[in-house]
Amino acid sequence: MEENNDKKPLRKLEELGEFGLIDYLTRDLVILNDTTVKGVGDDAAVLKTPRGHFQLASSDMMVENVHFDLTYFPLKHLGYKLAVINFSDIYAMNGYARQLLVDIAVSNRFTLEALEEFYTGLKIAAQRYGVDIVGGDTVSSQKGMILAGTALGHVKKDRVVYRSGARAHDLLVVTGDLGAAYAGLLVLLREKETFLANPRHQPDLTPYAYVVERQLKPEARKDVIEWLEQNDVIPTCMIDISDGLSSEVIHLTEASGKGAVIYEEKIPIARETAAVMEEFRIHPLTAALNGGEDYELLFGISQKDYEKIKDVPGFHIIGHFTEDPGAYLVTKANQQIELKAQGWNAFLERRRNPEKSEGNNDTNSKDEHKD
Amino acid sequence: MEENNDKKPLRKLEELGEFGLIDYLTRDLVILNDTTVKGVGDDAAVLKTPRGHFQLASSDMMVENVHFDLTYFPLKHLGYKLAVINFSDIYAMNGYARQLLVDIAVSNRFTLEALEEFYTGLKIAAQRYGVDIVGGDTVSSQKGMILAGTALGHVKKDRVVYRSGARAHDLLVVTGDLGAAYAGLLVLLREKETFLANPRHQPDLTPYAYVVERQLKPEARKDVIEWLEQNDVIPTCMIDISDGLSSEVIHLTEASGKGAVIYEEKIPIARETAAVMEEFRIHPLTAALNGGEDYELLFGISQKDYEKIKDVPGFHIIGHFTEDPGAYLVTKANQQIELKAQGWNAFLERRRNPEKSEGNNDTNSKDEHKD
Repeated sequence: MEENNDKKPLRKLEELGEFGLIDYLTRDLVILNDTTVKGVGDDAAVLKTPRGHFQLASSDMMVENVHFDLTYFPLKHLGYKLAVINFSDIYAMNGYARQLLVDIAVSNRFTLEALEEFYTGLKIAAQRYGVDIVGGDTVSSQKGMILAGTALGHVKKDRVVYRSGARAHDLLVVTGDLGAAYAGLLVLLREKETFLANPRHQPDLTPYAYVVERQLKPEARKDVIEWLEQNDVIPTCMIDISDGLSSEVIHLTEASGKGAVIYEEKIPIARETAAVMEEFRIHPLTAALNGGEDYELLFGISQKDYEKIKDVPGFHIIGHFTEDPGAYLVTKANQQIELKAQGWNAFLERRRNPEKSEGNNDTNSKDEHKD
Repeated sequence: MEENNDKKPLRKLEELGEFGLIDYLTRDLVILNDTTVKGVGDDAAVLKTPRGHFQLASSDMMVENVHFDLTYFPLKHLGYKLAVINFSDIYAMNGYARQLLVDIAVSNRFTLEALEEFYTGLKIAAQRYGVDIVGGDTVSSQKGMILAGTALGHVKKDRVVYRSGARAHDLLVVTGDLGAAYAGLLVLLREKETFLANPRHQPDLTPYAYVVERQLKPEARKDVIEWLEQNDVIPTCMIDISDGLSSEVIHLTEASGKGAVIYEEKIPIARETAAVMEEFRIHPLTAALNGGEDYELLFGISQKDYEKIKDVPGFHIIGHFTEDPGAYLVTKANQQIELKAQGWNAFLERRRNPEKSEGNNDTNSKDEHKD
């Protein structure tokens, strides 16, 4: 699971015990934010909220063999991803992530070195995004690895953005490109099957580097929040794309009591993503609408801000909000199809197999878009 | 696992899906605190910190069959306990818990009704302690139930108490009584074995009501924090007792760079706890020192505050801090024994079997205290 070139024996977790483990993993943490008054090492972290700001808090869980598979997921990347998906929720409020608490449950099949790899990934993400790791819990599980992160942050009171603020005629903007993380997952799952059939198989993932990285090492759009602040733009509503464009559009429309129309031709899908989806004979739009895990931002913008955003690289105006409820996709063939709340049904694990759920979502069908 | 007197069919979680489940479980939440600006229903909770206060944040995880066993742990109590153990960490900073995020991973063997029981317990605790449930994540696990709670709260800046503030000659005070939760665990484990041997066995837990309740439905000491504020007392250091008195005393001494002496005769152990421990032929002191899960508070008090606290019901002065390092117990036979950091070694599950780890802790031996 991790390299051990020095041939030192890997250490078992019980050698350290709970307190020793936390001390060891957090021994080199450096506090980056002056809002972190006290980090790891007491009953609770102590934080300041700058005057005129709200505090933000969000929590996300990741379960082995549900959200990740350690046969292809390096532990360092896993730590990075746990951190980033939690930061993403703070950015989705138009705020900045500042602190992270991390809960880890692991079985005794994990070594100290394995947990250290995981923590290294956490620390790299924390450093990169300017976030302090300030606490958490480390416990044993009977089976597998279960992770929970809680991100804390803050936002100026007059800049907080909810899901619920969309108004009719606001423009609907999405950042980056969609569906890549799902395409990467498909590639990794195929490699795993190949490997299980032939353990000597040496995968060459070079042609898939972009999509695989989007799956294994996603980034959150702190840069977008910075751009919005510097350019004095406040979205009317915002959400991060963790479950696929379809359900996020629906979340915004339902929370705002409005409707929306998006246009297939405007939905940004990277060439690499489209190529992978073609290989798998799934329409690329399916990955964008229902794949999830892109961690891009989706937001509403007042028409008055159109000039400011229209030429920003990586900002894509994909549609607009409407007074009448309902969320619709207009296809390239000019058909209007209602988006269905696919989301991620945690208990059917549909996210990992969106192509299997065509019956539940009109926009899922590959044939439909082949004209 | 829960009663279903109406004989309605129990609903499977996949019928609702992730979004439906969260909406259903949180549909009747009422916001209690004006510091909760926005609770469940967006990417992150939005909170205010009152002027002149620090924000506090702490996280605790509970894993099925490591921290609880659903064969004897009612789900409603489990929700209550998850909430309370998280609040306890906030009180241990001399602050007030105000918000809670709850992450739940469950396998599909759980029904909607089971999760609703769990959530009912959460809500009762939240109501009782004046805390708002403001978010969290609900995902599927491959096996069992894994819970993570994150409590948020605040404390006046000039009243925050760390583990590290003890000074020599400060008095060491513990609230309530110790060891009862561990005694309750022993009783429940014995009942489980009896039940497994004879499923028709009807347990009578009446004689054990006190200790069983301390295990299944612990309370956190918000009342102590209120007393301290009303009486203008600020502890010099504080910790909550989750891992047993021994390791908590050591945490305070190590964080403060001081030592401590505690006296066996001063350690509060309820009659009910002593009786159970006698039944199990374990010295009651072992339960107090190493049993854990009492969620009482342990704190240092300046000698100048002695008059204020000496007659407060439920406050027990059990010793004092010393300039020289090391934490010692003086037995009733006037022997001085060094306390060892037993803590809870998560990866050996020692907490559940403290009597098995005598070799690691001098004070653990039953014989030692029988003189």
